[in-house]
Amino acid sequence: MSQTIDPTVVEQVTALARRARTASRHLALMSRAEKDAALLLLADAVDAAATAVVEANAEDLERGRAAGMSASLQDRLRLDETRVAAVAQALRDVAALPDPVGEIVRGSTLANGLQIRQVRVPMGVIGMIYEARPNVTVDAAGLALKSGNAVLLRGGSAAASSNHALVTVLRESLAAQGLPADAITLLEEGGRDAARALMTARGHVDLVIPRGGADLIQTVVRESTVPVIETGVGVCHVYVDRAADLDKAQAVTVNAKTQRPSVCNAAESLLVHRDVAADFLPKVLTDLAGAGVRLHVAPEVTEYAEAAGAAYELASEEDFGTEWHGLELSVAVVDDVDEAMERIRKYGTGHTEAIVTEDRGAARRFTAEVDAAVVMVNASTRFTDGGEFGFGAEIGISTQKLHARGPMALPELTTTKWVVEGDGHTR
Amino acid sequence: MSQTIDPTVVEQVTALARRARTASRHLALMSRAEKDAALLLLADAVDAAATAVVEANAEDLERGRAAGMSASLQDRLRLDETRVAAVAQALRDVAALPDPVGEIVRGSTLANGLQIRQVRVPMGVIGMIYEARPNVTVDAAGLALKSGNAVLLRGGSAAASSNHALVTVLRESLAAQGLPADAITLLEEGGRDAARALMTARGHVDLVIPRGGADLIQTVVRESTVPVIETGVGVCHVYVDRAADLDKAQAVTVNAKTQRPSVCNAAESLLVHRDVAADFLPKVLTDLAGAGVRLHVAPEVTEYAEAAGAAYELASEEDFGTEWHGLELSVAVVDDVDEAMERIRKYGTGHTEAIVTEDRGAARRFTAEVDAAVVMVNASTRFTDGGEFGFGAEIGISTQKLHARGPMALPELTTTKWVVEGDGHTR
Repeated sequence: MSQTIDPTVVEQVTALARRARTASRHLALMSRAEKDAALLLLADAVDAAATAVVEANAEDLERGRAAGMSASLQDRLRLDETRVAAVAQALRDVAALPDPVGEIVRGSTLANGLQIRQVRVPMGVIGMIYEARPNVTVDAAGLALKSGNAVLLRGGSAAASSNHALVTVLRESLAAQGLPADAITLLEEGGRDAARALMTARGHVDLVIPRGGADLIQTVVRESTVPVIETGVGVCHVYVDRAADLDKAQAVTVNAKTQRPSVCNAAESLLVHRDVAADFLPKVLTDLAGAGVRLHVAPEVTEYAEAAGAAYELASEEDFGTEWHGLELSVAVVDDVDEAMERIRKYGTGHTEAIVTEDRGAARRFTAEVDAAVVMVNASTRFTDGGEFGFGAEIGISTQKLHARGPMALPELTTTKWVVEGDGHTR
Repeated sequence: MSQTIDPTVVEQVTALARRARTASRHLALMSRAEKDAALLLLADAVDAAATAVVEANAEDLERGRAAGMSASLQDRLRLDETRVAAVAQALRDVAALPDPVGEIVRGSTLANGLQIRQVRVPMGVIGMIYEARPNVTVDAAGLALKSGNAVLLRGGSAAASSNHALVTVLRESLAAQGLPADAITLLEEGGRDAARALMTARGHVDLVIPRGGADLIQTVVRESTVPVIETGVGVCHVYVDRAADLDKAQAVTVNAKTQRPSVCNAAESLLVHRDVAADFLPKVLTDLAGAGVRLHVAPEVTEYAEAAGAAYELASEEDFGTEWHGLELSVAVVDDVDEAMERIRKYGTGHTEAIVTEDRGAARRFTAEVDAAVVMVNASTRFTDGGEFGFGAEIGISTQKLHARGPMALPELTTTKWVVEGDGHTR
C-alpha cells in the first residue's frame, strides 16, 4: 500500500471531484454549437484578463528566480501579452475542430432485428498532472470542454499564481455563461498529497494524464489506481541504413536533433550503418557540431567526432538511454538493421523511431518490427505531433499501448458506449 | 508500496515473460493464413488429447470435492469429452474470424506529402488472471494467438491439473509446428506471488486482464502497475418506464433475470415507475416467483411480493448494489426516469442498463445520460455479449472506459502504430 495520504486532503479532492462529476453530466449533453460558443467566450475572457494574468505570472517568475530556477524553465513559465494572446487563440482553434462526441464509430442491425451502435461519449472527469507550464492549464481546459469532460488540474507549484489567475478567469466566464464553473477546477491546496489524492480517486476520476518529465510520469504510473495514460518520454533514434540517401539522412538527422531539442520528439541517438559510416559521419557530425550539439559517442565514432571539431565524450551505457532535452546526441555504428532494432528495443521508449533508407525491404522490416507509437521512414522524428498529423490540438503523445498511442487529440479524450435498441427482444 | 513479492518468483515470472516477449515478435509477423493453420492444428491436438485432459480434470474435481467445493463451482470446473470437443471447436471458430492485425484504421497524405497511416498491431504480451474455468485457458490462448500476442496464463489453483494438461498439449503442438511454444505459457509455480509478479511485470507484460468475481478484479486493479482492463462485474438494472409496453417489460425482465442467472449480464435489480407498479408488479413478480427467484424488495413492494407468493425479504441498502449470481433480484419503485437514473448511478457498475419504454423522449434521455458500457432499450440485458453482437469470441466484457468498453473481441486485443513515410521530410 502507498504511504498514507492526509485524509483531509483526500476529502477535499474527493469533494472537488464530485462537483466536477456533476458538471461533467451537463457538459456531456451540450451540443457542438454550445461548446464552441463557450470556448470562444472563454478565449475572449482570457484576452480581456491579459494584464492580470501577466502580473500573476510575474509573481511566479519572481519566486522562480529567487529559488534559482534555470533560464529554460523560466522561459517555459513566462507569459507575456503575446503568449497570453496565443493561449486565448488556442481555445478558438479548439472551437474550430470537429466534436468527437456523438460520432457513431460502428453499428449494425443484427439478424434478430436488434440495432446496435457504438457511440463516442465523454470520459467524464479527467485529471491532469503537469509541471510549470501555464499554457497547459488553458489547453487542457479547452480540450476537455470540447470533448465534454470536466477537468481537475494539478499544475506545478512554480506556476501557482499564473494558474490561479487563468483558472479564475475561465471559471468566472463559465459561470457568467450559465455553465457549471466546476467543469474546470484547479487543485490549489494540499501539496503533493493533493496530486496523490487525485491519482487514487478511483470512481471519481476516470483518467489521469501526466505531462512532464520521466520522473513525474513514473511516479503517477506507480501511485495511480485511476487509469493513467503515459505521455511524452522520448528517447527517439534516427537509424541511417546502408541504403540511405545520405543527403536525406543528413537533413533528417540535423532537423530531428536541432529544430527544437527540448521536446519529446527530438532525436536523442543516431545509429549509422557501418558501410556508410565513413561517408556519412564526417558530414553530419560537422553540421551537428556547427549547430552546437555535444556528442556522446561509441569508441569507433571518436575519430569522426574529433575530425569534425565537435565537443564530444565517450558515451556511457546510460548515455544511450538518455533523453537529453537539449543539444546533445549519442552516436553509434551498427552492423545492420537487426542491430539497430536491437538497440531501439533496449534503449528506446516506444515514442518515435526513424529509419533513413531507399531499400524497400529494410523499410518494411523496420516499420513492421519496431515497437513504437510512431515509426518514420525518411522523415524527421519531429513530425510526431497532433498539429503536424492534422488533428489540431493534442493533449500529449501517448507512449503506451492501451487506449491511445501517439498524438492524443480530441477523440482520444472520449470513450464509447454501446446503444442497443430492440422491441422487447429476449434471448 | 505493496507487500514484498518473493524475489525468486519475480525472477521466474520475469524470465517467462521475456521468453513470451521473444515469442510475441514471431507471432506479430505471422500472416492470417499461418495463424489460422496453427489454430486448426491446436484444435486437433486438443481433440486428440481429450482422454488425458478429462483424466487431469478428474484429479482437480477429486481435490475440489475433498475440499468441499460447491456443486456450481464443480460444474464450472468439469470437463467431459463433450466439453473438451467444445473447447477445441472454439479454436476453430477463432480461426474463422477476421484477423485484426494489419488493419489500417485511418490514414492520410498530409499537405507536405508525408503519408501517415494508423495500423493495428498486436499488444505483445498479455497476462490473464482467472478462476477455475479451464475453458478460459484455451479460449484466451486462441484469441491471443489470433491477435498476434503471446499470453501468460495464471488460472485458479483448483484447475491446476486441467490447465497443465491443456497447456502442455497446446505448447507441444506449437513446437511440433515449428512455432515458439512460449507463445502460450502457464504460470504454475509461485502461488499468489506469481500472480502479483505478473501484475507488476511492467515493461515485460503489456496488459493484464482479470476474469472472475469482484474480489479478484479489485485485487488486480489495486496491485497492478501493468495496465489492466477490468471485466465483468455487472449490477445490471431493468427500468420499466411509465410508458412501457408491459408485455415487453415482462418478457425482458424475466429473460434478463432467469435465462442464465449466474453471468454478469443478468439483471440484478428491477426498477418500476410508480404509475405502472400496480399493473406491472403482480404479473412480473408472479412469473419471477414461478421461476424460483427470491426477491429483495423496497417496503412498498412487499404487498406485491406477498400477493405473488414469492419468497422475499425487505431489501437492505447493500442488497441494491449486490450482484446475486443466481435467482435473486432486488425490486424498487421509482417516481420517474430521473430517480431510476440516480439509482443506476449509485448502485450500477457501468456494465449494462436497460429501459423498457415506448416513449422516445425517455429512451433518448436514458441512452444519453446513463453511463454504462451498454444501454439497452426494450431488450434484455443478456444481449451484452461478443457472440450476440456478431464479434465471434470475446475475452470478457470491459466495464472500464479506457481502451475498450463492452464486449472485448479480437480488435480490442491489439493496439495501433503510426507509420509515417516521407522522402527526406524535415520541419
